[in-house]
Amino acid sequence: MIGSNLYIGLVHHPVYDKRGKVVAAAVTNFDVHDIARCARTYSLGGFFIITPLESQAELAKRIIWHWVEGAGSSYNPTRKEPLSLVEVIQSIDEADLKLSRLYGKKAKRIATGASAHPGNIGFELLKGLIEDRKTPFLILFGTGWGLTQEVKESSDYVLAPIMGEREAGEKGGTRYNHLSVRSAVAIILDRLLGDRTA
Amino acid sequence: MIGSNLYIGLVHHPVYDKRGKVVAAAVTNFDVHDIARCARTYSLGGFFIITPLESQAELAKRIIWHWVEGAGSSYNPTRKEPLSLVEVIQSIDEADLKLSRLYGKKAKRIATGASAHPGNIGFELLKGLIEDRKTPFLILFGTGWGLTQEVKESSDYVLAPIMGEREAGEKGGTRYNHLSVRSAVAIILDRLLGDRTA
Repeated sequence: MIGSNLYIGLVHHPVYDKRGKVVAAAVTNFDVHDIARCARTYSLGGFFIITPLESQAELAKRIIWHWVEGAGSSYNPTRKEPLSLVEVIQSIDEADLKLSRLYGKKAKRIATGASAHPGNIGFELLKGLIEDRKTPFLILFGTGWGLTQEVKESSDYVLAPIMGEREAGEKGGTRYNHLSVRSAVAIILDRLLGDRTA
Repeated sequence: MIGSNLYIGLVHHPVYDKRGKVVAAAVTNFDVHDIARCARTYSLGGFFIITPLESQAELAKRIIWHWVEGAGSSYNPTRKEPLSLVEVIQSIDEADLKLSRLYGKKAKRIATGASAHPGNIGFELLKGLIEDRKTPFLILFGTGWGLTQEVKESSDYVLAPIMGEREAGEKGGTRYNHLSVRSAVAIILDRLLGDRTA
């Protein structure tokens, strides 16, 4: 299936809080649903929810179970397919390990964030890279106030931040870069995989 | 400001429920925040939350007040700017009226939805239309199970549904078109206004 060598990881640790401290953020129900629905729309290989906290992992697993196997699966069957793509794991390394086993080679890891980073790669370049269907690509999104510098630096690539309108900066306006992680995932997947010929 | 002749309306009535009945859907906190943050990112003229229910209008206004004027404005100032763009109104007609007064001409109304509609217009065409900065454009998004046929038929245009990957249909795969309204807004604004040259 097209796009199936592309995976996303929603990282709850290590991320920054608003004061720049490294924390484990809580799992948000809306993240699970919205991002799983995007993952299904763009036919991703999978969606990892990454948290080292047992209580948060349990919460995420309960949400998934409810919609895939429980009462939710008949109440609203359109949630079953997307949530079937979700896997709850403890660390970014665990995602790497799973993908390595599946593909017999190391995944290319792409970090995302709201601010520019030296050596950012653009969307068009990444679009070209993921054409290599035999290599798994794992795009990481940070919850809270974003992925730590360490995660960015240990990734193969850091994707350029989403820019709203091009002219804002040129006209002396200010660029606002505080999208929710849910919106960021939607926009990035559409830029990489969406059919914009319509 | 670029894009400022573009407005969005999040419609809570008239929309369908899952059985196809016309209802007034509840206001969702995450819709207010995520969509306002997108509206700010892409420098829209405004974001109308449309509900005829007094209790729901009050809820939305309380959320906005908290982040624009109340304790939230100092706790997290990045929410103040986006939520300042939000206005809670009772009907689509009220949005039309406000825009007519502001621009001295009727707004062009664009309906959105997950399914194809006869006479859908594509993203590229709409991108061209909104270049006419003197005309206000109001893009409507339905909560619940989507805008009613009547809203679509009384609009000037109906935008093509978001397609995930192009090849799904061609390869006999099934297209999944159940994005959250939050994700749909993010993707549509990025297609119309996003700086994808990065």
